[in-house]
Amino acid sequence: MNGAHALLRTLVANGVDTCFTNPGTSEMHFVAALDDVPEMRPILALFEGVATGAADGYGRMAGRPAATLLHLGPGLGNGLANLHNARRARTPIVNIVGDHATYHQALDAPLASDIVGVARNVSRWIRESKGPETVGADAAEAISEARRGGVATLILPADASWSEGAQPGPEAIAHVGFISFADEVELAVKALRSGEPTALLLGGKALTERGLLAASRVAQATGAKLLCETFPARLVRGAGLPAVERLGYLAEFAVAQLQGLRNLVLVDAKEPVSFFAYPNLPSELAPEGCEIRDLVADGVLAEAALEALADALGAPADGAVRTPAARPDRPSGALNPETIANAIGALLPEGAIVSDEANTAGLFVSGATAGAPRHDWLTLTGGAIGQGMPVATGAAVACPDRKVLNLQADGSAMYTIQSLWTQARENLDVTTIIFDNRSYAILSLELSRVGARTDGNAADLFDISRPPLDFVSLARGMGVDGTRAETADELVRALEHALSEPGPHLIDAILPARL
Amino acid sequence: MNGAHALLRTLVANGVDTCFTNPGTSEMHFVAALDDVPEMRPILALFEGVATGAADGYGRMAGRPAATLLHLGPGLGNGLANLHNARRARTPIVNIVGDHATYHQALDAPLASDIVGVARNVSRWIRESKGPETVGADAAEAISEARRGGVATLILPADASWSEGAQPGPEAIAHVGFISFADEVELAVKALRSGEPTALLLGGKALTERGLLAASRVAQATGAKLLCETFPARLVRGAGLPAVERLGYLAEFAVAQLQGLRNLVLVDAKEPVSFFAYPNLPSELAPEGCEIRDLVADGVLAEAALEALADALGAPADGAVRTPAARPDRPSGALNPETIANAIGALLPEGAIVSDEANTAGLFVSGATAGAPRHDWLTLTGGAIGQGMPVATGAAVACPDRKVLNLQADGSAMYTIQSLWTQARENLDVTTIIFDNRSYAILSLELSRVGARTDGNAADLFDISRPPLDFVSLARGMGVDGTRAETADELVRALEHALSEPGPHLIDAILPARL
Repeated sequence: MNGAHALLRTLVANGVDTCFTNPGTSEMHFVAALDDVPEMRPILALFEGVATGAADGYGRMAGRPAATLLHLGPGLGNGLANLHNARRARTPIVNIVGDHATYHQALDAPLASDIVGVARNVSRWIRESKGPETVGADAAEAISEARRGGVATLILPADASWSEGAQPGPEAIAHVGFISFADEVELAVKALRSGEPTALLLGGKALTERGLLAASRVAQATGAKLLCETFPARLVRGAGLPAVERLGYLAEFAVAQLQGLRNLVLVDAKEPVSFFAYPNLPSELAPEGCEIRDLVADGVLAEAALEALADALGAPADGAVRTPAARPDRPSGALNPETIANAIGALLPEGAIVSDEANTAGLFVSGATAGAPRHDWLTLTGGAIGQGMPVATGAAVACPDRKVLNLQADGSAMYTIQSLWTQARENLDVTTIIFDNRSYAILSLELSRVGARTDGNAADLFDISRPPLDFVSLARGMGVDGTRAETADELVRALEHALSEPGPHLIDAILPARL
Repeated sequence: MNGAHALLRTLVANGVDTCFTNPGTSEMHFVAALDDVPEMRPILALFEGVATGAADGYGRMAGRPAATLLHLGPGLGNGLANLHNARRARTPIVNIVGDHATYHQALDAPLASDIVGVARNVSRWIRESKGPETVGADAAEAISEARRGGVATLILPADASWSEGAQPGPEAIAHVGFISFADEVELAVKALRSGEPTALLLGGKALTERGLLAASRVAQATGAKLLCETFPARLVRGAGLPAVERLGYLAEFAVAQLQGLRNLVLVDAKEPVSFFAYPNLPSELAPEGCEIRDLVADGVLAEAALEALADALGAPADGAVRTPAARPDRPSGALNPETIANAIGALLPEGAIVSDEANTAGLFVSGATAGAPRHDWLTLTGGAIGQGMPVATGAAVACPDRKVLNLQADGSAMYTIQSLWTQARENLDVTTIIFDNRSYAILSLELSRVGARTDGNAADLFDISRPPLDFVSLARGMGVDGTRAETADELVRALEHALSEPGPHLIDAILPARL
């Protein structure tokens, strides 16, 4: 058995049966071995950023890792931005990077580069397989590490792949948290009963139904505020679930949300910091004197710790507040950020997965879908734009029976627009709505904040209307049906149609410029 | 004066007056400062791989660096593959990467990452500006280092950019080589006069008109073979210039070209190694016992050293062999790799710049253009595909009075297809011919070489016909006129039209599958 076979056997034996890839010559023996391991489903992307982002979306929804297969340092580089996002989402991914044969590396052939140096940036674990003997065990360890939450990078030299003498690795270890949280619960109870303004800040694995119900019990029993990190990896929401307020993206908004707090209890969340630094604004957002403590830092225990906290407070078991079902009416008339949000709120299907990279233009969608049927919300976790379309792609692979809705800003769409082709090739049930305002609107806003002119060379860099992008043509070019919607009525009609049949669709929703 | 102003002033004072960019919030003060430094031309790309590849194309043709402006680690990651190619091409680039404010970095905000670790991979020099006081001097040093040939990365924290107290840096140092090559010339003369089979392998700066004329004199005087590295950064060729045989991409071909050689003289070129390793094939390509020596390793001296060598050998000053003018007839009938090559050979304009990423399907183009009017040939230097379209974009910015022809494989095109939008926005004179064979043909070939089936899961990964890519729609989606050519006659017509008017054009040349 060669190394490639042992690797594939180890992956599929441990439930890693999906591989998002754009391979090359150094990965050829892995590719050839796919014919003998039909349990592995290879999914081709035309660009590595699609492959890594899809692995992120898959991992967030499947709760187990997909593999990638990337072509040396440049392939890793192309996939790096979405691995960065996956790292921030703590998504399990087995990130396989092919390399030159071990004896070829010292020759500095054109594609040679320092893969470890680049991978370190996004990986919780890195291993270079030294030969066929270790590939199986290395793969099992990579899977164990990925399950702890994050990117495990396995570098696979071509000769470790093609040489005989390999064997499948052992069963990978499931990740289980063992840390007691009794002390943390006691301290949190004290804070919550102090009579001082207190909030829970939920993140990561606290944002499940179980976590949210327990957190809502705590809030009801104590009057504490419920907050959620700005960019959750996966947030379940909608009718029947407790609502949670997301911390604002702009530092001024987040500061206002946190104002007056004396205690902040973190539940699988990080201390709130400003997304960017600004002259004369604080980087740390909690008010001075606010005591910040972790209830639990390891996501696996988040739900249990919240339930223990609710019980310790004597909160009734049915004390959670569940959002009532409510939808906006189907909008009519002009298309703008409000009517686009209402169209989505009116039509969002039960069990939908929303991949949200709508940025500024999507400001109203959250409110308009708060009472929609239960759905999952996936956001841009690491700030590296170009994540929404790949994540939607991977989520659709993980959940073939659910509708995926990708809310996609136009500027960000162009980073990984190649996602559409994979959606067509795999006939994935993804509907993409382009929030087409022909600008990097968030950057126009930031430019005005630094006091620059709105009509100079600088402002021109955030105007992407010249030439206008025609997303219907772009979709057609990659085999996806596209529709242009210039009014709210057209959007409603196009969205109803897209949701009524399987397979990928794109709707180019034409908004007023710079909104 | 704030750091951003000082940086821009230092750049333009040293002739770095073009900046390929996709900026974000951390770069906002640099962007705002553009309004006050109109000598700097900012060129927007929708994706950082376009910006870095365009800087490469610009640097190869202008002979001086452009700047980039990238958005933190993820922006650098997106641009990394084409910086890898630029590193291999030794193209001068001042690579500016914005970062969080220095005091914000420790907070691990979502976009924080190890920029230095990633930049190291592609940079000959890296500096993080510590504050506004050093930005100007740091920029001058970056320019000096870039001029030595390669990527100089300047990391610019947001507070170094926005803070006052900066001043422009000193004049950047021009790169001059001082190393004597007298001994090397003497040894090369000895090899060339040994009577043993000897070849010159030319690369880098030896591939200019002056370098090629001197090398041809040497070859004529001694019977030495003239070879050129497989993937030159810039090769001048065509009627009136000496021809040089490029070393083959596949190891078997290169081995055959080098067979029997007893001496190999490197002129700004590296010892030939196989692009990839293969089981049972050598990685080092020169035959055993062949003596390999550098005539000159520093590109700046390549032309002078070749001339000194020719003189030392007593080669007549007019002894170079110049390729006679010759063009194929305009082809007719079916479109295939031969007829597409003949169409290009028949129509290539005087002074054209060819950005060649046609890969397997472009096999015949080199022969068909050998006697075409003088032109420059830019190739994929580092093996990271997705370089042809950005390099064409940057070359057109550097040389607005020349026609740029981008020979582009379909699979590779999809990595950085966003280049078309920048070509439209800047009205660049680039004609792209898509070699549309609906496959990663080179990988299909490699797969057959490892003995895999041609109809399984493996082979399917190299078939990109499902769905077919429609490049005319893709071009239209980004504001570029596109034409589909299914016959040689249609291609000739479309190419004549595209070359007859300025601005970007795309021709989707439909070839038989997998050729």
